[in-house]
Amino acid sequence: MLIVMEKTATPEQIASVVAAVQGQGYEARPIPGGERTSIGVLRNQGPVEAALFVGLPGVRDVIPVTRPYKLVSREFQAQDTLVHVGGVTIGQGHLTIIAGPCAVESETQTLKTAELVAAAGAHIFRGGAYKPRTSPYAFQGLGLEGLKILRRVRETVGLPVVTEVLDEESFPLVEEYADIIQIGTRNMQNFSLLRRAGRSRRPVVLKRGMSATIDEWLMAAEYLLAGGNAQTILCERGVRTFVNHSRNTLDLSAVPYVRKESHLPIIIDPSHAAGRRDQVIPLARAAVAAEAHGLMIEVHHNPDQALSDGAQSLYPEQFATLCRQVLAIRAAMGA
Amino acid sequence: MLIVMEKTATPEQIASVVAAVQGQGYEARPIPGGERTSIGVLRNQGPVEAALFVGLPGVRDVIPVTRPYKLVSREFQAQDTLVHVGGVTIGQGHLTIIAGPCAVESETQTLKTAELVAAAGAHIFRGGAYKPRTSPYAFQGLGLEGLKILRRVRETVGLPVVTEVLDEESFPLVEEYADIIQIGTRNMQNFSLLRRAGRSRRPVVLKRGMSATIDEWLMAAEYLLAGGNAQTILCERGVRTFVNHSRNTLDLSAVPYVRKESHLPIIIDPSHAAGRRDQVIPLARAAVAAEAHGLMIEVHHNPDQALSDGAQSLYPEQFATLCRQVLAIRAAMGA
Amino acid sequence: MLIVMEKTATPEQIASVVAAVQGQGYEARPIPGGERTSIGVLRNQGPVEAALFVGLPGVRDVIPVTRPYKLVSREFQAQDTLVHVGGVTIGQGHLTIIAGPCAVESETQTLKTAELVAAAGAHIFRGGAYKPRTSPYAFQGLGLEGLKILRRVRETVGLPVVTEVLDEESFPLVEEYADIIQIGTRNMQNFSLLRRAGRSRRPVVLKRGMSATIDEWLMAAEYLLAGGNAQTILCERGVRTFVNHSRNTLDLSAVPYVRKESHLPIIIDPSHAAGRRDQVIPLARAAVAAEAHGLMIEVHHNPDQALSDGAQSLYPEQFATLCRQVLAIRAAMGA
Amino acid sequence: MLIVMEKTATPEQIASVVAAVQGQGYEARPIPGGERTSIGVLRNQGPVEAALFVGLPGVRDVIPVTRPYKLVSREFQAQDTLVHVGGVTIGQGHLTIIAGPCAVESETQTLKTAELVAAAGAHIFRGGAYKPRTSPYAFQGLGLEGLKILRRVRETVGLPVVTEVLDEESFPLVEEYADIIQIGTRNMQNFSLLRRAGRSRRPVVLKRGMSATIDEWLMAAEYLLAGGNAQTILCERGVRTFVNHSRNTLDLSAVPYVRKESHLPIIIDPSHAAGRRDQVIPLARAAVAAEAHGLMIEVHHNPDQALSDGAQSLYPEQFATLCRQVLAIRAAMGA
Repeated sequence: MLIVMEKTATPEQIASVVAAVQGQGYEARPIPGGERTSIGVLRNQGPVEAALFVGLPGVRDVIPVTRPYKLVSREFQAQDTLVHVGGVTIGQGHLTIIAGPCAVESETQTLKTAELVAAAGAHIFRGGAYKPRTSPYAFQGLGLEGLKILRRVRETVGLPVVTEVLDEESFPLVEEYADIIQIGTRNMQNFSLLRRAGRSRRPVVLKRGMSATIDEWLMAAEYLLAGGNAQTILCERGVRTFVNHSRNTLDLSAVPYVRKESHLPIIIDPSHAAGRRDQVIPLARAAVAAEAHGLMIEVHHNPDQALSDGAQSLYPEQFATLCRQVLAIRAAMGA
Repeated sequence: MLIVMEKTATPEQIASVVAAVQGQGYEARPIPGGERTSIGVLRNQGPVEAALFVGLPGVRDVIPVTRPYKLVSREFQAQDTLVHVGGVTIGQGHLTIIAGPCAVESETQTLKTAELVAAAGAHIFRGGAYKPRTSPYAFQGLGLEGLKILRRVRETVGLPVVTEVLDEESFPLVEEYADIIQIGTRNMQNFSLLRRAGRSRRPVVLKRGMSATIDEWLMAAEYLLAGGNAQTILCERGVRTFVNHSRNTLDLSAVPYVRKESHLPIIIDPSHAAGRRDQVIPLARAAVAAEAHGLMIEVHHNPDQALSDGAQSLYPEQFATLCRQVLAIRAAMGA
Repeated sequence: MLIVMEKTATPEQIASVVAAVQGQGYEARPIPGGERTSIGVLRNQGPVEAALFVGLPGVRDVIPVTRPYKLVSREFQAQDTLVHVGGVTIGQGHLTIIAGPCAVESETQTLKTAELVAAAGAHIFRGGAYKPRTSPYAFQGLGLEGLKILRRVRETVGLPVVTEVLDEESFPLVEEYADIIQIGTRNMQNFSLLRRAGRSRRPVVLKRGMSATIDEWLMAAEYLLAGGNAQTILCERGVRTFVNHSRNTLDLSAVPYVRKESHLPIIIDPSHAAGRRDQVIPLARAAVAAEAHGLMIEVHHNPDQALSDGAQSLYPEQFATLCRQVLAIRAAMGA
Repeated sequence: MLIVMEKTATPEQIASVVAAVQGQGYEARPIPGGERTSIGVLRNQGPVEAALFVGLPGVRDVIPVTRPYKLVSREFQAQDTLVHVGGVTIGQGHLTIIAGPCAVESETQTLKTAELVAAAGAHIFRGGAYKPRTSPYAFQGLGLEGLKILRRVRETVGLPVVTEVLDEESFPLVEEYADIIQIGTRNMQNFSLLRRAGRSRRPVVLKRGMSATIDEWLMAAEYLLAGGNAQTILCERGVRTFVNHSRNTLDLSAVPYVRKESHLPIIIDPSHAAGRRDQVIPLARAAVAAEAHGLMIEVHHNPDQALSDGAQSLYPEQFATLCRQVLAIRAAMGA
């Protein structure tokens, strides 16, 4: 951490900041510059709270230098994490395609969609049994009945299943029925849920919060790893901006950045980013070209009848096209 | 809802959209324009899912007309909601000042700060026993011990107490010890927690999510009212933008907008919006001048030693100045 | 346009809005809904000013239905615009690569870089003679001397040249020396400059403003087409968001959206979006996978010595890799 | 500037960065930390280009320490700048109210509005003769005829006049007719226009760009001061965010921040920030409570007939209320 003093800071103010740094058990090293003095904070294990020094007299800025995360960082673990589930591997060297409907609506719909996405090349099936809905009056998912449908479909079709968990109460059930547990965008900083997932034996897909910085996202993943669950997959799904021609703005520079900063796999959900069917395929291709480790795609065997997010669900034949195209792109990139 | 067709839409496509609307039990009314046809969706009770029609052939745009919220809207209830707690009223005609430290750190610190803010004019005391922290390694609050300190301080100083709840598991305890329950920014769309709070007998302060639109915020409040808890207070605390000279950007136009759209009280938290002590007082004054119903302010008897968010906590004498200034502004406005 | 009335609007208020619509020469069609009345505005040629009706008593919302742009829209012209310059074509069916240094610094640097990018496969050379700089104290470009260098380099290397124009005063000079004129991000709504460029005989690259919606961007292009210059190329270069791991956030959903809405070619500048060398290649590949019509890339023969934006300029061998990869991706997509 | 190295940086990489710093004429001071080395850049006059070091091997981050602006900074000039024009003073100790229509439409409209705002307490009159319009088909202002109307109105009513300039070509005319020249949001980084305004003998109101950081805004003002025009007034008018209940989001924390960082006066334009009449008065009161030095308000004698931005123009009686309220607030604050 670097504490930048005002040009007009007095020697007494500088001494007092130095004392405050030492009072926290760190070493303080004043760095006289051309115009002002800065004070380096050394010998810290992990990040220092900027708040401790921001308000002191004569202090102009407090600039963090160390990253706040540890276990998730590539500086801590150089080799890539690979997540293994039901014969599928997610991570460096693989392109994993997760697909399925937004919500489990019925056994027929779920089974039909699962068969179609499996035939097209999906590796993992997705479907929501518990749905986070903006409105208390909207369809909230089939709950346990939905989980049971997912299990039957998995047995029939043979794909591992990922589904979202909304709270600690239903966590044991979801953990029992699902192969991978998803923590959704709105729960990215639900720290009680993160702690519970850190104790789970299931891999976790952690979606990025709608306005989370990558530091905050990696810190949420740090809760999982600190809790003991190293099988964590990051999923970028668009961030909220002023842009209004798509539901959210897909932040693809997150892919190279996360790959550099962390050893965890990063996949992309273009369906929620776009919110519109006609942008999903171009964004999916772009994600693979940016070297994401996988895709999560909404597909419905009959999107015009879907109970939620039908506007962004692909038709089965569109999904088949998408699979062909992203595999061709990946091959072209020499993977 | 209005469905806008492409200029090139065929009569068959228009007929097919009309049929889809009728298939949902609504009335469809085609409106031929100069350049294109639009189709009005009528006879709906409450909002219609845009997703049902977005992807249909020939459809260019689907434009919602009805607001999605109901119980929280002023169209539903014209008169202002007043929240009553321990002799204090929050809502139209009142300016309620809530103050206290970010976190309960010890009985001495809490008692000292409570006495100072009470003397300066605060009506309600705030302090966190369970703290949502970005880092798993940061101070997470004293938990139950913190709640007990809050109760003793309330008995000594006489102010009602508001504190944050993080999950359903600790909800009964928080409900037992606190006078008002706070749902924090990161949990604004934790729908399980909202449902639990909807069944609570305590008033709730619902902070706005960091990137929530007002529609989404009011829909979160709708969960509370739909669950039976009408004693809901909205709290604006800044939204995330590109701006980097404050931690978040305080959205003061939310005050007139919410006052127009809803009957619920709206208060402002300038401390978290600013993240810097030197912006808190100007923003607090501005909030009162914009006719917020109250303020929530972080104060610490010794902010330089605070365990969390010390940089934004006011010194006691600054808080006293703030109270004097906002009362004078309110008086000047003829209230 | 649709005017949505309050639930509580009186028949007199509705009648008065109808009269206001008719007073502007339009037809007004009231649409009684389940809960409220809306009023359709018909027979308008082009968009209607929402401002005319927003403030009227009883009006809740005014919702535009028609898009504001005309000449740039695909509804106006169905076939794709192709821009031709010096034997190079930009638009549907082509992938045009523009590359070169941020600024023209010297003849040696410019020539060297041009030879390297031409050898790697670039079709058009870029380089700034007039540089828009945040600081008045930063290097502002070589001006006319830079233009002369560009001409000599073009003669030697054989690539057409694009360079930025900053004002009307220097427009004739830039027009004389350059093959394509660039209007930069900060000038996207410099309407005097747009009008001047509309009268130019040179094709124009119009960069998207840092916080421009696509409607605003297309309206800026509308100035060019309305002025008579149909040889317009749109360039997305990232928008400003809260995200801080890249300089700006590349908005790739702009590609499918613009391709659908407009007949103009759209290219991508990943260098300015990223602001960091290590993100440029992944974003460039992603842009091509999203079917952008071209790329604009910063390359410097020795970026560590560059006078501006060295941190985002590719090394020549990186640019050669980029060219190989994007061509392979394009081939894989069946183009 | 602080250059933070990777944990894994080799001694050779550190030595090579030190050499690069020295090669630019600065002093380099390595600061070994607990986990990594940082390198302080010293003896620089003014800011150092981060780009010079970002891409070097082993470099993780480059963190600017010095602010980029100089003449506009309070560190350079401690006492507040006061702008004097036609008997009116703008700056510390004053609350200056600027009001008038968005556009000059006719002599009658302009005169009527000017008389009304003068009577209500405005100190300066505003009105646009040259209008920057998103659409080439919208009303672009009366031009020279509008300037002549402004002069006649000034002679009749006695208020100094501020009006916007769009380009260098019309600059001499605007300078001749106006008392204060406004540079609009979309031209905040039109550097040629800024340079021209820096040579003007008229005070300048510089509006903040829609997505400009305060650093960028102050750097734009630095162009004016570096050019010789110290009579510069900053005007905050809302920034672009995801928020959609107001046209833009008014960033009131800019007021305390600018007052601390700079000696220039800062005024607030709530009309463009809100874009809706019913939010203008609350935001204006808030701006004064935050200690802005002035307000710029749109008023029209008959907003329902206005040719531009009628939805945000106040009725004359609303403006009179606003003036009364902000004066009362200012008095209450002890000014």
